[in-house]
Amino acid sequence: MTFDTMKKLITIAASLLWGAALFAQQALVPGSGIVSPEINADNTVTFRYYNPKAVTVQISGDFLPSQKITYVMDGQERVWEAPGKADLVERNGLWTFTTEPLKGELYSYTLYVDGQKTMDPSNIYQNRDIATWTNIFTMSTEKGDKGWYYEVQDVPHGNVSKVWYESPTLGTQRRMTVYTPAGYEKNPKKKYPVLYLLHGSGGDEDAWSDLGRAVQILDNLIAEGKAEPMIVVMPNGVYFNQAAPGVAVNMFQPTITNSRSQSTEEVEMSFPDIIRFMEANYRVRKDQYGRAVAGLSMGGRQSAALSRRHPSMFGYVGMFSGVVPPEEDDKALEAVFAAKPKLYWIACGKTDGVMVNSLLLKEYCESKGYPVSFYESEGGHIWRNWREYLTIFAQKIFK
Amino acid sequence: MTFDTMKKLITIAASLLWGAALFAQQALVPGSGIVSPEINADNTVTFRYYNPKAVTVQISGDFLPSQKITYVMDGQERVWEAPGKADLVERNGLWTFTTEPLKGELYSYTLYVDGQKTMDPSNIYQNRDIATWTNIFTMSTEKGDKGWYYEVQDVPHGNVSKVWYESPTLGTQRRMTVYTPAGYEKNPKKKYPVLYLLHGSGGDEDAWSDLGRAVQILDNLIAEGKAEPMIVVMPNGVYFNQAAPGVAVNMFQPTITNSRSQSTEEVEMSFPDIIRFMEANYRVRKDQYGRAVAGLSMGGRQSAALSRRHPSMFGYVGMFSGVVPPEEDDKALEAVFAAKPKLYWIACGKTDGVMVNSLLLKEYCESKGYPVSFYESEGGHIWRNWREYLTIFAQKIFK
Repeated sequence: MTFDTMKKLITIAASLLWGAALFAQQALVPGSGIVSPEINADNTVTFRYYNPKAVTVQISGDFLPSQKITYVMDGQERVWEAPGKADLVERNGLWTFTTEPLKGELYSYTLYVDGQKTMDPSNIYQNRDIATWTNIFTMSTEKGDKGWYYEVQDVPHGNVSKVWYESPTLGTQRRMTVYTPAGYEKNPKKKYPVLYLLHGSGGDEDAWSDLGRAVQILDNLIAEGKAEPMIVVMPNGVYFNQAAPGVAVNMFQPTITNSRSQSTEEVEMSFPDIIRFMEANYRVRKDQYGRAVAGLSMGGRQSAALSRRHPSMFGYVGMFSGVVPPEEDDKALEAVFAAKPKLYWIACGKTDGVMVNSLLLKEYCESKGYPVSFYESEGGHIWRNWREYLTIFAQKIFK
Repeated sequence: MTFDTMKKLITIAASLLWGAALFAQQALVPGSGIVSPEINADNTVTFRYYNPKAVTVQISGDFLPSQKITYVMDGQERVWEAPGKADLVERNGLWTFTTEPLKGELYSYTLYVDGQKTMDPSNIYQNRDIATWTNIFTMSTEKGDKGWYYEVQDVPHGNVSKVWYESPTLGTQRRMTVYTPAGYEKNPKKKYPVLYLLHGSGGDEDAWSDLGRAVQILDNLIAEGKAEPMIVVMPNGVYFNQAAPGVAVNMFQPTITNSRSQSTEEVEMSFPDIIRFMEANYRVRKDQYGRAVAGLSMGGRQSAALSRRHPSMFGYVGMFSGVVPPEEDDKALEAVFAAKPKLYWIACGKTDGVMVNSLLLKEYCESKGYPVSFYESEGGHIWRNWREYLTIFAQKIFK
């Protein structure tokens, strides 16, 4: 009897416990009972993978010391911090690896079996970033650490809708994600402020809710009284895509090149279509200080560009690892600050290539006496930072 | 220079084309340009996988002739039709396989590399069924074939919301999926009929929209004028889970055993909480013939049980591969038909173990003169059938 046949028979035997006909198509013994990852009491994490034939099994994860890869760009030596790798150790076909104690965070990892990227078959939790799937897990070591905000807590939950709106400017229907906070239905007279939250190159209207944990962050901050109840609108910032993969015509493979010239012009021109839809279909505040815009990378540039084109549209502007650098004698930026935003917030990681432009913009604003806020974090151009920036930014707006 | 280092340098070089700082964390050359699957002009499909070190690569997919596995249950010999397997052929490290010409359908597959289940790294499209991920693709060979209804077409799209409702009966907040058809926002006086659509064991409120393509099926049927514009409510039918994995407290691993005794009693008791929420928050019809209930497997049993407990709640009942078999002199069933449902629809696959009970129920109804409808398809207890049953059932209701 081969192992495969044996597994099938075990599967069938298991199914008998649950009555007839439940087993077809569905794998009833996923991972054969292996638990991976397992978060241990000392905040180390153990990964397990069963494969008696593999010669090497490695794990690549953002909880491991990063690999520094040096390269030259524009004549300058630069460093790219890639997720670190570690070897799993095998015993009786079971490969294991245990981390050092970790802090609260959402972590990503993938396995490499004989050098080939392989999803951890025992962990159903996955994220897609552009065209790359990785396994994920969240953990928190105490209430209120970063991971705690990314986890689902037993608090009132907001609703998440995938809505289609007409964009007369782009001549098409387009999809976006709308978060309405807990209590929206029960307070039919209340009007809510709106945060427009924009994704990066190659992303889509699912990016902030899936990779960014925006829903959990807002649920938890609002439940704690640290953020105002707000609506969060997460549109698709790639103007020539109607929607994310799977809900768009054609099964396209997203790439970072989808965003071409970063789509700024078209996004700026068509953005009022989104605001009109929101004001027609949701109970939203329609004043400048009832609107914020923020985004990551391309979305940061778009946020900067939107505030320059429509200075009194937004009372709060957040640029996460993406800015429009200042021009000499920058009239558009002068107009932004003439409209008196309550917050003009630049956030960037120390090793992020965007830091150069972020500092340029900060210093220009300071030289002009514009009230700019600057937040510098560790690390580079990564989702870990963008989740953190959202957590901070959401506490600063609509107050 | 190792292949890994070379790949990283290529990645970095590619990123330079798109400006600084975009490359960290994100794999910019996913699948190294390999296209898989590729649907060819003659409706064959080619799969490609690059792995120069693998010894064997196989594909398991529901488009291959199924493997018949014979086993004995309750003293009877039975057949389980598992998805078939085929070998990929290697040349220069690239493994390929091309199918026979296929019909329009949503197909699932997975790769086995040296015997280990591996996701196709070139295909971002995946579905999770309970705890098992498989790659998927849709194809259609002509307008109106099955696959065409499962694809996203360029038609007006309905919205999909993940909403939380209070269940006083279960003493908790719970999450469900609500589909509102295109035009719902633009017709603020219109009241819509509601289909309550229930998943199977181990499933959750995402199952029908993700695995079942309910959104695409309804969008396309409504656009074609073949189904009435309707709201579809897809609750979580596992009464002790609040929500699907990832949006529930704890990162639980779903199993079919989650459903224990099929949750019928608690689901029946708490179902009016769902209807009350819908009637309070959506523009819905509140009459019997403005409500339908249908479900697959466990959800089929729940649909049958709900109609027995609340005979005049639903004007249409659909039982897909799941029924409550009749009792001797079945008073509950008598009450169901006394309430004059316009449709009492049993659907089952020829090789499905549920067929025995489905036929028992059909024959009992016929013996009593109850107007029962019966639909028999090929195959067994599989999503392919449930998508088809929904496509048929949705055209029969609210007319």
